[in-house]
Amino acid sequence: MIISMERGAPREQIEAVIGRIHELGYESHPIYGAERTVIGVVGRLHRPEKELFEGLAGVETVVYISKPFKLSSLEFHPVPTVVDVDGVKIGGPEIVLIAGPCSVESEEQIVTIAKAVRSAGAKILRGGAYKPRTSPFAFQGLKRDGLEMLRTAKRETGLKIVTEVLSVTDLDLVVEYADMIQLGARNCQNFSLLEAVGKTRKPVLYKRGMATTIHEWLQAADYLLDGGNTQVVLCERGIRTFETATRNTLDINAVPVVKELSHLPILVDPSHGTGHNHLVTAVARAGIAAGADGLAIEVHHQPDKAWSDGHQSLRPGQFEECVAEVRKIAAAMGRAL
Amino acid sequence: MIISMERGAPREQIEAVIGRIHELGYESHPIYGAERTVIGVVGRLHRPEKELFEGLAGVETVVYISKPFKLSSLEFHPVPTVVDVDGVKIGGPEIVLIAGPCSVESEEQIVTIAKAVRSAGAKILRGGAYKPRTSPFAFQGLKRDGLEMLRTAKRETGLKIVTEVLSVTDLDLVVEYADMIQLGARNCQNFSLLEAVGKTRKPVLYKRGMATTIHEWLQAADYLLDGGNTQVVLCERGIRTFETATRNTLDINAVPVVKELSHLPILVDPSHGTGHNHLVTAVARAGIAAGADGLAIEVHHQPDKAWSDGHQSLRPGQFEECVAEVRKIAAAMGRAL
Amino acid sequence: MIISMERGAPREQIEAVIGRIHELGYESHPIYGAERTVIGVVGRLHRPEKELFEGLAGVETVVYISKPFKLSSLEFHPVPTVVDVDGVKIGGPEIVLIAGPCSVESEEQIVTIAKAVRSAGAKILRGGAYKPRTSPFAFQGLKRDGLEMLRTAKRETGLKIVTEVLSVTDLDLVVEYADMIQLGARNCQNFSLLEAVGKTRKPVLYKRGMATTIHEWLQAADYLLDGGNTQVVLCERGIRTFETATRNTLDINAVPVVKELSHLPILVDPSHGTGHNHLVTAVARAGIAAGADGLAIEVHHQPDKAWSDGHQSLRPGQFEECVAEVRKIAAAMGRAL
Amino acid sequence: MIISMERGAPREQIEAVIGRIHELGYESHPIYGAERTVIGVVGRLHRPEKELFEGLAGVETVVYISKPFKLSSLEFHPVPTVVDVDGVKIGGPEIVLIAGPCSVESEEQIVTIAKAVRSAGAKILRGGAYKPRTSPFAFQGLKRDGLEMLRTAKRETGLKIVTEVLSVTDLDLVVEYADMIQLGARNCQNFSLLEAVGKTRKPVLYKRGMATTIHEWLQAADYLLDGGNTQVVLCERGIRTFETATRNTLDINAVPVVKELSHLPILVDPSHGTGHNHLVTAVARAGIAAGADGLAIEVHHQPDKAWSDGHQSLRPGQFEECVAEVRKIAAAMGRAL
Repeated sequence: MIISMERGAPREQIEAVIGRIHELGYESHPIYGAERTVIGVVGRLHRPEKELFEGLAGVETVVYISKPFKLSSLEFHPVPTVVDVDGVKIGGPEIVLIAGPCSVESEEQIVTIAKAVRSAGAKILRGGAYKPRTSPFAFQGLKRDGLEMLRTAKRETGLKIVTEVLSVTDLDLVVEYADMIQLGARNCQNFSLLEAVGKTRKPVLYKRGMATTIHEWLQAADYLLDGGNTQVVLCERGIRTFETATRNTLDINAVPVVKELSHLPILVDPSHGTGHNHLVTAVARAGIAAGADGLAIEVHHQPDKAWSDGHQSLRPGQFEECVAEVRKIAAAMGRAL
Repeated sequence: MIISMERGAPREQIEAVIGRIHELGYESHPIYGAERTVIGVVGRLHRPEKELFEGLAGVETVVYISKPFKLSSLEFHPVPTVVDVDGVKIGGPEIVLIAGPCSVESEEQIVTIAKAVRSAGAKILRGGAYKPRTSPFAFQGLKRDGLEMLRTAKRETGLKIVTEVLSVTDLDLVVEYADMIQLGARNCQNFSLLEAVGKTRKPVLYKRGMATTIHEWLQAADYLLDGGNTQVVLCERGIRTFETATRNTLDINAVPVVKELSHLPILVDPSHGTGHNHLVTAVARAGIAAGADGLAIEVHHQPDKAWSDGHQSLRPGQFEECVAEVRKIAAAMGRAL
Repeated sequence: MIISMERGAPREQIEAVIGRIHELGYESHPIYGAERTVIGVVGRLHRPEKELFEGLAGVETVVYISKPFKLSSLEFHPVPTVVDVDGVKIGGPEIVLIAGPCSVESEEQIVTIAKAVRSAGAKILRGGAYKPRTSPFAFQGLKRDGLEMLRTAKRETGLKIVTEVLSVTDLDLVVEYADMIQLGARNCQNFSLLEAVGKTRKPVLYKRGMATTIHEWLQAADYLLDGGNTQVVLCERGIRTFETATRNTLDINAVPVVKELSHLPILVDPSHGTGHNHLVTAVARAGIAAGADGLAIEVHHQPDKAWSDGHQSLRPGQFEECVAEVRKIAAAMGRAL
Repeated sequence: MIISMERGAPREQIEAVIGRIHELGYESHPIYGAERTVIGVVGRLHRPEKELFEGLAGVETVVYISKPFKLSSLEFHPVPTVVDVDGVKIGGPEIVLIAGPCSVESEEQIVTIAKAVRSAGAKILRGGAYKPRTSPFAFQGLKRDGLEMLRTAKRETGLKIVTEVLSVTDLDLVVEYADMIQLGARNCQNFSLLEAVGKTRKPVLYKRGMATTIHEWLQAADYLLDGGNTQVVLCERGIRTFETATRNTLDINAVPVVKELSHLPILVDPSHGTGHNHLVTAVARAGIAAGADGLAIEVHHQPDKAWSDGHQSLRPGQFEECVAEVRKIAAAMGRAL
C-alpha cells in the first residue's frame, strides 16, 4: 500500500502517519520526493485497510499495490481448483454445460426440459424454486414444491441439480435437495448469506453482481472460502452499463482476468449476459473461446408460456444447435464437451 | 404496455399474441401501421409483465408505458407520507439530520459522538453494529454489544437510533434495539430481507443500491409496503459510475424524480455519495436545495482512529459548520432545521 | 413511435397532440385506455423525432418502436456489405487482421513491425501519425512524416495502410496516403468530421465511442453513408464502465447485435478493449467466435520503448501465437484466415 | 508515480526498470518489500506517462500519485480565475445565468426569448447555430443565418452571446459573432478543435463529455490553456450512467471536486443534466448550493414547437420562477444574482 501525502505536508504530519503505521503493526518505507512524500506500507500477514489511513491529516491518497483478495487468489493457491458436483468436474479439461428453465413451473415442465438438455449434452440442470423478482407482485417460485420437482427430474435423468438460495432461512432446505447452490447476482455482496453458504460443503455457483468489480467479487468469494467451502465456481453473467440494446453487458474480459488472478473455475451465462435468445449462441461461443470452463444457459420448451425469462430462453432445438456450435469452439480450444 | 411486432410479422403471429394477451386476462388494442403492427395492452389490476410477451414469435420489443411500481407511487397514494421515528417526523416541513459514526466502536466513542451531533442539531443517531464489509478479514461490527452501546447513547442523549440489519437472522434483535432499521445499498434488492422487514412495523431507512435504477428502487420498496410497513424513508447514497475521483456519484436528479413519482420521503447521504469528508458539506447543501427531506452524515470524533470510513467522516466541529451552512439553505427552501 | 399521455390528461391535451402529429405530416393512432391514452405515430418517410413531442402538455413519455438508424440498417440494405480496402475484402468469408503499433515512431520501427505482422498473417498495417492524446504534453504523432513512413512500409511489404484522422484540416493529406481512414472512439460523434469523411470514397474503420450506444453508433454511421461513402467497417473497442481491472470493457454482445441490425462488417479491437497485452489473445479468440469479421491488434517489436500503448501491444512473437490460436477459432467458425 | 513490480520479479527486471527511469530523465526511489518491490518515480518537470512503464518486463501496475493536469490545476495557479465575457464576470462573487433555446430557429424566436430571459435576470444568451445531432436526418442548425440572428438579439437586448462551434472550419466565423464559444460534450476530447480554440482569445464554455472523468476533463482543458487561452469556464452537464429515468446523471459531486482541484470557474447545466423541464429548477438550486458559479438553462417560449430539446426547455414564466428560487439559494450562499 502506498500513502501519498499532500504537497508540502509538514514533517509532523508525515511522522504522525508513520507512527500510526507502526502502531498498527506494519512496516513503513517513506520516499521523500521533491514535491511530496509518499510512504510505502508493507504488511506481514494481510493487506492493511486503506481506510485506516485515508482520514489522517496530510494524507492525499492511499492506493493499493497488492490485490485485495487472498484465499481466492492464484498467488495464495497456485493450482487451479476443480470443483466436483457429485461427480461432474468443473474446471478440468472438460467444458460443462448447465441448462434449464429460469423457474421450475411444474413437474412435467422440468422433466421435459431436463430430458431435452441432457440429450443435448448438459450435465447439470438449473431451475429456480426461489426467485428474486424485481416486483413483489411477480411470480416468486414454487419453493419446496419446486425443489421436489427438481429431485424428480434428477431421478428421471441423472442430471445434477443447481438451484438458487435467497435467504439463510431456506438454506438447509436447499442444501438438502441441491447438488450445487446458486448465489445470484443480487446476492453477490450479501455477506451474511455468503457466510452461511461458506459453512456448508456444497459446491456453489457464484454469480457476479451487476455492479461488482472483479476484485470485489474475488474478495467476496473469500467469504465462502474462509468458511471452509472450497467448491466455488464463478459465473460471469453481465454487468450493468449505459447500453440498452441488451439486458446486461457480458464482460468477456472478466474470463481471462479471473483466469490470471484466481484458481477458481469460471463459467459464462450468455442468457442473462445478453437478455435475448437470438444472441445467446454467439456469446456462448465467445465465452468458451475466451477460456471459460463452461456455460449456464436458460432453456424452455415453451418460451411463449414461460412464467419468467421466456425471451432469453432457448427452445430445446435451439439449445441443441447452440451446443453443436459450442462443441466446435471447445474442440478448437483443445477441450472436450 | 406496448408490444411492437417485427416488420412484416405475419397475421397468424399477430393473432397469437393477441390471443395470449386475452388468455392472461388483459385487453388488446392493435394498431396496424404501414410498416409494422403494434399492440397496446391494458391491464385492469396491475401492469402485465413484459417478459410474458417478449418470448412470443414475431415480437420485436415490448415497452412499458405505465410505471412498474404501485404502492410506492404518488398515483396510488397521492398524499406525501410522513414517517414517524418515535416522535421525529421525516417528510414534513422540517429537515431531519441523521448523524453518527460508520461503526459503533465502544461505548465511550458512541456516547461522545452522540452528544456532539445532538448539540449540532441531529435528531437521529446512526451507527453500525453489523457491518457489510467487502472483505471477510475486515472488522464486522460489535453486533449485540454494539446495539447495547447504541441504547446507552440513546439514554444519555435522547437521540433516536437507526442501525443496519444485514440478515433475517438478526432482525428481531435489531428491531428490539432500534427506532429505525437501515437497509443498506447492498441489500436494496435482497428481497427476502425486504419481505421480513416489511412485516415489522419499524420505520425503515432504505438506501438505494449502487446499480439500482430509481424505478427498480421504488418497485423494491413495494416489497416493504406490501408487507404492511408504510414507514419507509428512501435514501440516495450515490450510484456506481465510471468516475473515480469520488467513491460514488451522488445522483442529485433522484431527489426531484422521487418527489415526482412517489409519496415516500427521501434523504441524501453525502458521506457515501462522495466518499471524502471535504466534499460532504457542499453536497449536503445541494441535497437540501434539490428538495430532500433530510441528510444522513457520518461523523467521528477521531477520524484518524476510526475502524472504518474515517476518510469520509466529519469531525464534530466540521459537522457543526456543515449544519450551519445547511441551515441557511433549508431556510431559503422555507424549511426549518 | 408511441406517445403516452399522463394519467387523466384532459381531452383537449390529447387533441392538441394529435393535431401536432398531423401538422408535422404523420399519422396518429390513439388508444384510449382505462387509465391513460397512448397514441401511435406512424411516419411515411423516416422516423419522427421524439423530442418534437416530449414538450407537449400532457405528454408523459415518448418511446420509439422503430430503430433510429436507416442507411446502416439491415432492413434498409438486406445484403451484408463487403468493404474493399484496395483488394483486401472485409465482411466476406475471410477473417481480416489489422495490426501494427499505436504510433508510427520511425521508419525503421514501422518497417520492422510491418514485416513481422505481414509474415504472421496481417493484411492491413495500422499506425498513428496523428494521435489523440489525453494530455497536451504527451507525444502527438509524427504527422506528415509518419504518413511518409507508412507509405514506405507499404512499399516494402505490400500491406494496406489504415491510419487515424483527427481533423477535417488533415483529411486531404490522410486520404492521399491511407488505404483506409480510421475514425477513433473520441470522434465517434464528431459529426462534422463524419460528414467530411462521408464525402470521400475511402474505406473507413469506424470505432465505437466509449459511451456510445449501439443504436447511436449506427445512427452516426448514417452520416458516413448519407454522404455517399458506403465503405464503412465498424470496430468494437470497448466501452467505459465501472470496472477498473481493465482499461475498457469490450462489449462482446455488440458483435451479434450489430450483425442482426446492420449490413456493415464489424471488427473487434482486443488491445483497446482490454488494455493489457496478456488479455489480448483470449479476447481476440472471443471476438472471432462471436462472429466478428476481423481483428485490430496493436503490435510493437519493443513494447518497452514504445512511445504509447506499450503495455497493450503484443510483441511479434506473441502476435504470431495469437494468430495461431485465432486461426483455430476461425476454422471452427468455417472461416479462413 | 509508483511502479509496482510483480511478486518475486528478479533483480535484473528491477534494474532494467530503474535504468529506463533514469534514461527518460526521472529519479527512482525503490522500496524493496518482503513480497514485492515498488519503485517511486519523481519527475522534475511534468508527470511521466504511465504507459512508458507499463510495458516493461516484471511490471505489475503503475499508479499515479500526482494529478494528470497541470495548467488547469489550483496547485499551478492558486488564484481562482475570473472569466470576462465582454464585461460579464464568471467566477467572481456573482452568479451568472446563461439562458436561451437549444437552437436558433428564427429572428423572431431568438429575439423573443432573449428579451424574456434578460428580464428574468440572464446575462448571456445561448442558442445553437451549428447543432451536433445524433441523426444526419435531424435539423442541423441555421449556421451563418443563425449567427446573424444571435447578433440581432444581442443588439436588441444587450445580452452577450454564447454559441457552439463544431468544427475548426467554422471557428473563424463563430469567433466573429460570439462573445463566448461553446465546446459541447461530444467535443470534450476533440483535441484538434481544442487546440484551435486554445489559439483564440475568446472565452470558452467548456462542457464535460458524457464519459469523461473529471481528471481527463481538466487534462483536456490544458489543451486550451496551453494554447494561451486562459478564459475557460467549465460546465457540468451530466454524465452517462445506467439510470434511464433521466437523460443524463448530473454529477453534482463534480462541482466541489473541481473547486478543490482547479482555478477555473464551473457552471451547471440542469437542462441537459436531467433532460426534463420539470426537474430543472430543483437541480438548478442544487448546483448553486454545491458552489457553482452559474447556470446554463434552456428556455423556449413555445416548447411545443421547438425544433429540438423542447421537453427540457423552460417556458419564460417557468424560467422566471426558477430564477426566483435560485436567487434565494444564491443569497443563502452569500452570492448575488
